[in-house]
Amino acid sequence: MTISPTGEALRKSLDGPFHALKQRWRDEVTADDVVRDTALTMDEARDWALDRVIGLASRNFVTAGFPSEQGGTGNAAESVANFEMVAMGDLSLTIKTGVQHGLFGGAIVNLGTSYHHETFLPGAISVDLPGCFAMTEIGHGSDVQSLETSITWDPETSEFVVHSPSPTSTKAYIGNAGRDGRMAVVFGQLWVDGVHEGVHVVLVPIRDENGNDLPGVTTGDQGHKGGLLGVDNGTISFEHVRVPREMLLDRYGGVNEAGEYESKIKSKNARFFTMLGTLVRGRICVGGGAASAARKALTISVNYANQRRQFREPGLGHEILLLDYLTHQRRLLPNVAAAYAFGFAQNELSLELQRVMDAEGADPHAARALETLAAGMKSMQTRWANDTLQECREACGGAGYLSDNAITLARQDADVFATFEGDNTVLLQLVAKALLLNSKTSWGEMDLRGTAQKTARLIGGTVLERTTARSLIDRLVASANRKPESQKLRARGWQIQLFEFREEHVVEGLAQRMRAASKAEDSFEAINQCQPHMLEAAKAHIERVVLEAFVAAIEDCEDDYVKALLVKVCDLYALSTIESNRAWYLEHEAFDPRRSKAITAAVNELCGELRGKSKELVEGLGVPEDWLVHPRTAIPPLSNKR
Amino acid sequence: MTISPTGEALRKSLDGPFHALKQRWRDEVTADDVVRDTALTMDEARDWALDRVIGLASRNFVTAGFPSEQGGTGNAAESVANFEMVAMGDLSLTIKTGVQHGLFGGAIVNLGTSYHHETFLPGAISVDLPGCFAMTEIGHGSDVQSLETSITWDPETSEFVVHSPSPTSTKAYIGNAGRDGRMAVVFGQLWVDGVHEGVHVVLVPIRDENGNDLPGVTTGDQGHKGGLLGVDNGTISFEHVRVPREMLLDRYGGVNEAGEYESKIKSKNARFFTMLGTLVRGRICVGGGAASAARKALTISVNYANQRRQFREPGLGHEILLLDYLTHQRRLLPNVAAAYAFGFAQNELSLELQRVMDAEGADPHAARALETLAAGMKSMQTRWANDTLQECREACGGAGYLSDNAITLARQDADVFATFEGDNTVLLQLVAKALLLNSKTSWGEMDLRGTAQKTARLIGGTVLERTTARSLIDRLVASANRKPESQKLRARGWQIQLFEFREEHVVEGLAQRMRAASKAEDSFEAINQCQPHMLEAAKAHIERVVLEAFVAAIEDCEDDYVKALLVKVCDLYALSTIESNRAWYLEHEAFDPRRSKAITAAVNELCGELRGKSKELVEGLGVPEDWLVHPRTAIPPLSNKR
Repeated sequence: MTISPTGEALRKSLDGPFHALKQRWRDEVTADDVVRDTALTMDEARDWALDRVIGLASRNFVTAGFPSEQGGTGNAAESVANFEMVAMGDLSLTIKTGVQHGLFGGAIVNLGTSYHHETFLPGAISVDLPGCFAMTEIGHGSDVQSLETSITWDPETSEFVVHSPSPTSTKAYIGNAGRDGRMAVVFGQLWVDGVHEGVHVVLVPIRDENGNDLPGVTTGDQGHKGGLLGVDNGTISFEHVRVPREMLLDRYGGVNEAGEYESKIKSKNARFFTMLGTLVRGRICVGGGAASAARKALTISVNYANQRRQFREPGLGHEILLLDYLTHQRRLLPNVAAAYAFGFAQNELSLELQRVMDAEGADPHAARALETLAAGMKSMQTRWANDTLQECREACGGAGYLSDNAITLARQDADVFATFEGDNTVLLQLVAKALLLNSKTSWGEMDLRGTAQKTARLIGGTVLERTTARSLIDRLVASANRKPESQKLRARGWQIQLFEFREEHVVEGLAQRMRAASKAEDSFEAINQCQPHMLEAAKAHIERVVLEAFVAAIEDCEDDYVKALLVKVCDLYALSTIESNRAWYLEHEAFDPRRSKAITAAVNELCGELRGKSKELVEGLGVPEDWLVHPRTAIPPLSNKR
Repeated sequence: MTISPTGEALRKSLDGPFHALKQRWRDEVTADDVVRDTALTMDEARDWALDRVIGLASRNFVTAGFPSEQGGTGNAAESVANFEMVAMGDLSLTIKTGVQHGLFGGAIVNLGTSYHHETFLPGAISVDLPGCFAMTEIGHGSDVQSLETSITWDPETSEFVVHSPSPTSTKAYIGNAGRDGRMAVVFGQLWVDGVHEGVHVVLVPIRDENGNDLPGVTTGDQGHKGGLLGVDNGTISFEHVRVPREMLLDRYGGVNEAGEYESKIKSKNARFFTMLGTLVRGRICVGGGAASAARKALTISVNYANQRRQFREPGLGHEILLLDYLTHQRRLLPNVAAAYAFGFAQNELSLELQRVMDAEGADPHAARALETLAAGMKSMQTRWANDTLQECREACGGAGYLSDNAITLARQDADVFATFEGDNTVLLQLVAKALLLNSKTSWGEMDLRGTAQKTARLIGGTVLERTTARSLIDRLVASANRKPESQKLRARGWQIQLFEFREEHVVEGLAQRMRAASKAEDSFEAINQCQPHMLEAAKAHIERVVLEAFVAAIEDCEDDYVKALLVKVCDLYALSTIESNRAWYLEHEAFDPRRSKAITAAVNELCGELRGKSKELVEGLGVPEDWLVHPRTAIPPLSNKR
């Protein structure tokens, strides 16, 4: 199948630095490799996912993140791009490789040392050693610091004893734990000579070659879920399970041959967040993967709306294409624009991940900023993806509900992306905390009272962290300020100023509220009242960063025709985002009611202008044509012209 | 299991006139009767649903709508209440009985005559004759008037010839067509002696006793879907299939023994809408059923949030219950309030259905108003239910994604409720049209240019149709006007005035836009630009009607304690609805930015006030306790107090 030259050029622009890598997927990976038969039972789906992961791994499509010694490229950004591509095929398959190669393999890469790399990575890569990432427990997910599982050093035998002390300490929702896993990286509280050293990670074999639980290990299959049927999520608990000293992933801390605890990082807290920080890639993958599923759904539903007709034009007698209706345009086209916006921002995020990895800890400020951005992008992209998938399902009517239409399956699979790798509501609060503190403390700690107290000292010092496009942004703002009122709406600089005003104002207001809250008698309740403002601050921040990424991408585009098209797409993203926040703008008198209505009118107008390019725009989203399996949505042209 | 006295009293109030009927379900129907094992395969789910429908029918739980001659009570309102109850168990089961008894049986009851009743209803009720409701075609769903299937009278043999003239005329998404159906009520264009008499409905046998397609009939199984796995949706097409004259459901029009077309209703258009109008019950059921699923999800997620703890309160050391977080309260409690609001309005709608049925056509104005309200309530309730189910899923975190937690299954099953029995976007436009024309023309016709032209003549005459609570409303408004500014927010009359202002202003503005559009050169495009305003008008209308129903229900409540509680729940519904529309209010200067922020603060405050009664409030939603099967969501109390 071929796509239009415009679609091809848009695809190149949106792929950005990963165009060659993504083209290789489109050229070499077939629907049979990555598209699931939607009617598979849970057991069949699990078999299929395992088989296809092994296939992709053997062809080096999902192993970029591993060290070159083990056959990878060591390029984390490329591993994210790979994740985004497989997510255009099937999300069960995506999470199956995500668990195996990203989380299990990634933990060994990042938290282990050469012994662990040499011993376990070959099996992790080939899937000869299916592995679990056993962090979450029934009682604690987002609050990793409160995990109950214990890892206790036994000096008598030079072993670690891994134990689950309570029902709530059972590891839960763990991918590969339900059926396939043979080994797990287990997060627990390390105790050495009666001293608590904080959360550490240890490799624990959980099943023998026949798939039976090893002594002291109890696994459970959590069975059928709301989606991701190809992933065998399960539970694991440990009854004083012993593993040799070498099994602790000890890059940041462990017990030496003399039986003493050793770590390069003195602060228990700093050690914890350094370990967790190495896992940031997972979050970046999840956001990008959800966005891929939304791109697929948008492609299917826009194509459908360009074929399916409904109701006759009065008098004229011919039936109207769905996408000619303004309401239908408004359901889909602003989401297409958002797909571009998030895509460009995701590319920047991946590149930044690579820069932080390459710096190997030399730039802790950049590392914290990356974690903030990753958390915010994960949260915002998964929210948008779920909403978009639902909108696309409904926009295809009954056809969208048939499993042969790939939307409904992707919708179910993407659902939990809002929860795993960090619950969205929790992540947005962490982003807000980082904004308040200008990355001045360890990232990821949910100490809101401490934040409130520190915020009190920082008040008035709120400064937006600028993206790389800063000088370009300044130019656009200056240019917008010179434009007459009538041209403001589509002046990029004017849009940017509104995004920036909102972010600054919300963060500043939040800082003031937090300061007041820290002095309140019931500080929990006072800080609790700040929660909605924290979410608002985080969203405003990410929306601004995403817009700036779009602006930078347009600047980089070398094809004038495509550039002009992207300018309109960016207008649609910017104005529809402002429109969705217009209650806030009106409350803060950033514009008046007349301007507010004009913004809605401008969004409608842009939908009309871009409607004619909708086919090319969804081609540009980059989903391989033969992965869009949805035979029944290809409605034959209507023949009745009574 | 017992519930609190407050929960019991709330339940009684919300059940309203259907309390005894609904109690019978709670007392006599077990989880085994109505709750599906979530891991069933599609084939198993189909077997289960068929078996359970037969069981419920034999116990008279789903047959209220049939005439007393056939063993029913003839009470349509009760049949809606039954539908709402089964929907608290399982939506596949609900739709299976909805197709068999509501649509197939209901079409025979409403469009057929005594011959059809006596001949086919016993089998329809017992499910000895599984039936389909074959209206939708691949090419036409919402636009029923454009169906392509033809029903042609053959005077030579005194038969009707049923034919599918094109691929797009294939009947599609038809429940019971995939596997179980033996007969179908088929909608098609009737031709008698070369004259087109419009859409009529004919009974056509489709499969023999062994389940094989009858000659000329081709059925297809649409297989796996995004939900409702227990319902066998499929396709049917006809190749010149002949049925005897008596098979036409001829209550409103048919061919007499002399071979001549006869109808009590002269206008083809009026005849069509009279036939469709008898199907209004289905829409009322679907809205209520979706709301039931949302009530179940709210019950599960509020109970979960009252057990599950996350993060420690700084310093104090104990972990915080999810529902103590303001963001979590805001996710769930306004939806609990909306559940009450929709529930009260749904009760009124059911009673109105019964009144219109009892009038037997004597009050066409009431019949059209009922159709408007049914369409609006279907659209608004299914939208709210889908959004609420998703919110509840996410609010339970990973536990919400396991199928053992009933939310995720209900979420998938309820999805298509936004589409079937009338696509929500189309329905809202029909509601808007009815508002513009004050029910002055046939209901349900999507002739927007005609509407625009007629609107031009009606401009300025927009009057809100009042609900039964009118004098009470007037009193509340007068009382609010006497209150000082500081007490306005919780003054019911003030809230009502805002709802009414919005409805009047949006409808009036729409009328002006439509008038202008009717004179435009490109009237399609001009009317197209009015579409978003049509949706807005319909929403504003339904929101006002729902609030008034809540107000009336509070007035009827005899328990003072419960009444006081419902007053707060109603405040939360009213203020959170105003809050969600605050951009519109600000744009129209109905209140200023300061007031807008105060409304948000009041919603937060109400969440805090109602949080302590959350358990009782969800008990009041009326879902039988032992139908809330979700073993894994019952998290044991956390034991770690380090």
